[in-house]
Amino acid sequence: QEKQPLLNISEHGIMLNSEDSKIQVGFNGRIYMDGVHYFDDVTDLSSDVSISDVRLGTTVMWDKWQVKINVGFGDEELCVKDAFLRYFQKENSYFTVGNFYEPFGIEASASSKDLRFIGHSNTTIALGIGRGIGVGYNYFTDKFYGATGLYAGSIENDHKGDQGFSTTTKLAYTPIVNDNLTWQVGASFSYRKPEANGFSEDFNDDDYNREVTFAAGPEELFLNGVVEGAQSEIKYNFQTMLLAKSFLFQGEYTRSKVARDEDYVSQLMKDQPLDYVTYVWPVAPGDYPAWYGDMKDVTTEAYYAQIGFLLGDEYSYNSATSYVNRAKPGTYEFVVRYDNTNLNDIDGTYFNGAYGPADLGAALTGAGNKSVAGGKAETFSAAVNYYVSDNIMFRLNYSLMDVDNINFPLDDKVGFLNARVQVSF
Amino acid sequence: QEKQPLLNISEHGIMLNSEDSKIQVGFNGRIYMDGVHYFDDVTDLSSDVSISDVRLGTTVMWDKWQVKINVGFGDEELCVKDAFLRYFQKENSYFTVGNFYEPFGIEASASSKDLRFIGHSNTTIALGIGRGIGVGYNYFTDKFYGATGLYAGSIENDHKGDQGFSTTTKLAYTPIVNDNLTWQVGASFSYRKPEANGFSEDFNDDDYNREVTFAAGPEELFLNGVVEGAQSEIKYNFQTMLLAKSFLFQGEYTRSKVARDEDYVSQLMKDQPLDYVTYVWPVAPGDYPAWYGDMKDVTTEAYYAQIGFLLGDEYSYNSATSYVNRAKPGTYEFVVRYDNTNLNDIDGTYFNGAYGPADLGAALTGAGNKSVAGGKAETFSAAVNYYVSDNIMFRLNYSLMDVDNINFPLDDKVGFLNARVQVSF
Amino acid sequence: QEKQPLLNISEHGIMLNSEDSKIQVGFNGRIYMDGVHYFDDVTDLSSDVSISDVRLGTTVMWDKWQVKINVGFGDEELCVKDAFLRYFQKENSYFTVGNFYEPFGIEASASSKDLRFIGHSNTTIALGIGRGIGVGYNYFTDKFYGATGLYAGSIENDHKGDQGFSTTTKLAYTPIVNDNLTWQVGASFSYRKPEANGFSEDFNDDDYNREVTFAAGPEELFLNGVVEGAQSEIKYNFQTMLLAKSFLFQGEYTRSKVARDEDYVSQLMKDQPLDYVTYVWPVAPGDYPAWYGDMKDVTTEAYYAQIGFLLGDEYSYNSATSYVNRAKPGTYEFVVRYDNTNLNDIDGTYFNGAYGPADLGAALTGAGNKSVAGGKAETFSAAVNYYVSDNIMFRLNYSLMDVDNINFPLDDKVGFLNARVQVSF
Repeated sequence: QEKQPLLNISEHGIMLNSEDSKIQVGFNGRIYMDGVHYFDDVTDLSSDVSISDVRLGTTVMWDKWQVKINVGFGDEELCVKDAFLRYFQKENSYFTVGNFYEPFGIEASASSKDLRFIGHSNTTIALGIGRGIGVGYNYFTDKFYGATGLYAGSIENDHKGDQGFSTTTKLAYTPIVNDNLTWQVGASFSYRKPEANGFSEDFNDDDYNREVTFAAGPEELFLNGVVEGAQSEIKYNFQTMLLAKSFLFQGEYTRSKVARDEDYVSQLMKDQPLDYVTYVWPVAPGDYPAWYGDMKDVTTEAYYAQIGFLLGDEYSYNSATSYVNRAKPGTYEFVVRYDNTNLNDIDGTYFNGAYGPADLGAALTGAGNKSVAGGKAETFSAAVNYYVSDNIMFRLNYSLMDVDNINFPLDDKVGFLNARVQVSF
Repeated sequence: QEKQPLLNISEHGIMLNSEDSKIQVGFNGRIYMDGVHYFDDVTDLSSDVSISDVRLGTTVMWDKWQVKINVGFGDEELCVKDAFLRYFQKENSYFTVGNFYEPFGIEASASSKDLRFIGHSNTTIALGIGRGIGVGYNYFTDKFYGATGLYAGSIENDHKGDQGFSTTTKLAYTPIVNDNLTWQVGASFSYRKPEANGFSEDFNDDDYNREVTFAAGPEELFLNGVVEGAQSEIKYNFQTMLLAKSFLFQGEYTRSKVARDEDYVSQLMKDQPLDYVTYVWPVAPGDYPAWYGDMKDVTTEAYYAQIGFLLGDEYSYNSATSYVNRAKPGTYEFVVRYDNTNLNDIDGTYFNGAYGPADLGAALTGAGNKSVAGGKAETFSAAVNYYVSDNIMFRLNYSLMDVDNINFPLDDKVGFLNARVQVSF
Repeated sequence: QEKQPLLNISEHGIMLNSEDSKIQVGFNGRIYMDGVHYFDDVTDLSSDVSISDVRLGTTVMWDKWQVKINVGFGDEELCVKDAFLRYFQKENSYFTVGNFYEPFGIEASASSKDLRFIGHSNTTIALGIGRGIGVGYNYFTDKFYGATGLYAGSIENDHKGDQGFSTTTKLAYTPIVNDNLTWQVGASFSYRKPEANGFSEDFNDDDYNREVTFAAGPEELFLNGVVEGAQSEIKYNFQTMLLAKSFLFQGEYTRSKVARDEDYVSQLMKDQPLDYVTYVWPVAPGDYPAWYGDMKDVTTEAYYAQIGFLLGDEYSYNSATSYVNRAKPGTYEFVVRYDNTNLNDIDGTYFNGAYGPADLGAALTGAGNKSVAGGKAETFSAAVNYYVSDNIMFRLNYSLMDVDNINFPLDDKVGFLNARVQVSF
């Protein structure tokens, strides 16, 4: 079954195809050369030039099977990207097992090389989902796209303790698909048990310290919320996309709700009040909600909307990815975006670096409550992209971030200029 | 000398061969998607899903030379696997230089993708040998297989101090090789100076703290013995394999003897008794063996036996590897194994967490002796393998481990269920 | 545009070229198997066998674009090597963006696989420049070679703080290029702002602790100078090369001058004299130069000269690289080298482990001055190389290093024997 293959280079890689296309081998690589210059407000940020992504990999397709292995070396940190086995039941219906994107929203399911901006929006970085290890199923037609999967943690997590799990589903419907107008609406949903964050020998338990982190923006300073004692998380996303010849409109809304564990017994055991007898301290599990407030659920939300314009090409829709195709070589693209990310779920009185009871007198005793003050930001961004070829792209972005974070009270407006030379094959 | 190549995919990789086969280029990749669920006894173990192996590499053959480079990225840890240059004197006689398996037994010389179970037996993990950096020579005929080499440490070792070395030889003889029956016996031998474990500025010496570690099983908890003050190690292995159509029998016995360094002078210098004048303490080198027992040699041993059955194919023998060939696509395989691994070399009285002098009164003073109590375990395992294609395999294992480890007195029976989707090319 | 490609292996890699050469794909790999044995003087050095370099990568050329991605895994440390995009304006004129060698001298611009010895000379290791992230331009004719670029730090630097930058230019002229004699002279120049070495929250500043490190030789012990408080560095290099049939002469001289920051105000703030009121301490910025000496500029310099002889081939010049071509298979090469590296910039009186004021009485009070005593060494080396094929080379080196380093007063002559099996494609 040996064949004389054909050699080609496309946006999908360097391709070797046997003449009857029974075997398709792709060699993949990527380089992102990035520069960022910060127009600091008060907090000093590190302007920097970097090779933020370098990748090597391969994609092999034979019979009904596809294998993809892609490894990242950006900033000299090892990162396993797509590593999966896929079985095509039909051309538009396939199963996947391995490490791959959980299907959630538009940006969180798309490769960074195909985004309109350098990197994802704060909405997606803070509240989106990345790759998980699991099994998934995808099905699509011209107008419908559905993907679902069951996952058990991410490859980065090397903490002890039983791993978490998640199930994530994305459905998109595109009632209008024609040359003049494409309109898509969609929704995604994810239920998640956070990953174990180590194992506590004291409690013979790995549930106690599960946590969920939301972070985005420059050096993840101004948007950064950690929800401790997390028990489960529900996420949902609504998306819409409209393509009208050279114009694009794209918007997403994402909301997360983290349920927390009212395990005041463990809390008391951990605090070991008997070791602190000379201080005032909770002495019974029931004291905790009274002192520190309930272990209330934490809700965060974010949304963005962006408008794009192509000079030299028109936007076209790809029903297999439920996303837009790459513009042809020589095209310029101009995009503006508004992003609103809110990682605050706050109540009570702010005093001495933390939120305490709503009652001022109680707050002044110094006890914090379970508020999460991850910060809030509105970000205005503009991008120019130049598609040099199917494999090369020049990008220039400017963003202005209006920061409202109680931990950085002096920072108000932070600007940053990003440039990227992007090579991908 | 440019040639139009042929493209193929086989269990050896994606192959590009020039038509006269003067140049053969293989592109290699691997993904192991693993799940493990523990049926804990007392000690809590971390059930987990992981991408335990991801690899990229290449194998190039031209003239009489072969180069293989294979790099592993499993669990996002960088690991250089095969990286060698090979010269074929004849088809059945070759020299190798670089990083490659030391020839020792059956399992320890075989790739994990070709094992009958997910991972090696405890016998092989605890007492086998992995890759070493060195030079080797291999020769085989239909009935004889011989491999020998000289090695100087492993690529993982980045400690200071002069590196150790080892010489390892494997000989296998297969008096009966026919379609109905194949019977092989073999023996391996290794002499090893352990790798330096850092450099002691106090003693201007790197010999003092060489050590040998034996460890296997779930999270390497229940089988784990460390022999400190190691001077040299002798290992030998006996193996046998019997193939009778759809049936396989395979067994190995491995024994290790570590000689320890009776350097009581260094020990005394290290303990610096003058700094502890207010305590009772050895004050002369000769006090050590009397107090703590002799620096006796430590002997550990292990063996396993397994029986396999193929549904849909028959076992066949490969004299080039002295191992069995991969079953053809569509085959099911069923295997059971019994493993007995004993990492204890104990004498004296157990008291307060360590072994002390045999004399009870002396033991109660608290002085330990030089026993190694790495634990002992009998493990019963069963496996089902499905060979989907030459490159894809589904595996399911169940193991029950009967633990006898003085450090985990409450753990008796530990069960674990492993599953793997294995892609290799 | 799909083409049937041709397969070939050359010193440039495994090449797949479409028949009209519109697409050239190279697959690159490398293995360095190294052994070093030290003939220690007093300080114990770690004799060692290692896989010091393992690489995988690809080079793709299509239209006027070239992309190179090369990742190193030597000693199991991840290291991004060449990762760039290149645009060929003409065959002898191109622009590069990404991570690549700054053009500086002969050895520092050459790949280690093409050097005459195992590794660079101490001159080049201590004072040369490696890869930087930036943009560059190259132009060459038969007799002229010019390269220049603008860089912003190296990929290894993950410290906080604004990155440094550099601009580096190399010019070489080869007035005589013929079969009997080739003579080249050249000069390189670099202006550098060192990379930020972290960010000081106390001073809201990342300039304060920029530093320049010069280090070379066995385990970087005997040649190792750190210039703290570095503000900028100027480096220049003069080179010459002479090829006369089977003979080669090559020499380089490199000098570095680091200007230091006379920021005595920050120094005073950092020392916080008010916290040390019971000690004598500088109490005003102006006290610093009086106590510790001026923040004087630090000058280091080094040079080497080597003579080579080929048995079985003649040296030939490559104007595209401004370096010599690889000898043909079957050739032996013999080389001797003298290297003189001086990392001392010392004045004053040596007392108690550091240099102090020239005035002996002041020195005895214990205050050091700003001298850098990185050590000085003369190294005599001899090499034998055997070029097995275009992709395989055996190397054997012996070096004798005459050490003069105040921090290693007992070490005088250190010898080392290096061997390498080198595979590169």
